[in-house]
Amino acid sequence: MSVSIQHVAVTSITRGLKNTAALLDKAKAHAEAAGANPDDYVAARLFEDMLPLSGQIQRVSDTAKGAVARLTGVDAPAMADDETSFADLQARIAKTLAFVESVPAASFDGAAEREVTVPAGPSMTLGFTGLDYLLEFVIPNFNFHVVTAYDILRHKGVPLGKRDFLGIGPERVKSGG
Amino acid sequence: MSVSIQHVAVTSITRGLKNTAALLDKAKAHAEAAGANPDDYVAARLFEDMLPLSGQIQRVSDTAKGAVARLTGVDAPAMADDETSFADLQARIAKTLAFVESVPAASFDGAAEREVTVPAGPSMTLGFTGLDYLLEFVIPNFNFHVVTAYDILRHKGVPLGKRDFLGIGPERVKSGG
Repeated sequence: MSVSIQHVAVTSITRGLKNTAALLDKAKAHAEAAGANPDDYVAARLFEDMLPLSGQIQRVSDTAKGAVARLTGVDAPAMADDETSFADLQARIAKTLAFVESVPAASFDGAAEREVTVPAGPSMTLGFTGLDYLLEFVIPNFNFHVVTAYDILRHKGVPLGKRDFLGIGPERVKSGG
Repeated sequence: MSVSIQHVAVTSITRGLKNTAALLDKAKAHAEAAGANPDDYVAARLFEDMLPLSGQIQRVSDTAKGAVARLTGVDAPAMADDETSFADLQARIAKTLAFVESVPAASFDGAAEREVTVPAGPSMTLGFTGLDYLLEFVIPNFNFHVVTAYDILRHKGVPLGKRDFLGIGPERVKSGG
């Protein structure tokens, strides 16, 4: 059996968005249980010249909606990068997920061979086939920002585990658990 | 066009292993230029109960070779998790890459529907089809450990950039650069 590029792209992206929303929920609950303000995590970062949590979530969203737009030709909604609270970040994720889920599977016909160009910085353009773009850029870049959001929260002491990141559902547990 | 599971798996894994080796090379050069010992990074971690750099690279390797083994039925080489230096970590990555590249593409025939079980902790077993295993477990978990290795090195001040992580080759640059 071969696999559709739509399935690879949409499964990877929708699972990652939902898991990211769940990580933020756990972080919010942790902060509130400790009497802290979860919005204080929004500006947290791992190093001075790295993006803060808000920037990581914005790039998760941009990579997700940009991938679906470039693979299908359907325009993605613009988003202003003005999130300053957990509620804002959750709304951004929900809006991104709604766009990804709104694009019909048939819109991905021909996506693997489609010519895709991606701006990389102010003066550089990258060019790929749709399949190379998905495997070399979208999936690693999307995961980069989800994992770095996770790592920022872990570094701040939020008790997350790998299973929160992977979001493995109970239907996958065959024994134990 | 549909896509082969072999291509999705092997492209994701081999690119990630090569990019990880390049990240370690850059970290080693940075430490040496500063008169520091790069092996001091091997035990660095983001939080007290997270794996250090060595553990992240070991799990990158395990996820890569375990994925190829479970998807094809070809036994993966055992590795002892005894790395204590950058040279050890590079040897681990090279040995893992050699295994992944040694498995013929035809061994992935039927991999998408293959029943795969994965131990998750001491008492739990997860079960997937090969395709679900690749998309829900292998690719996110593999990226998790590559990105966390990157984040550990960035947190220690190593000047890495996103392009080092993505490993976008010059053949993808269409303008600028």
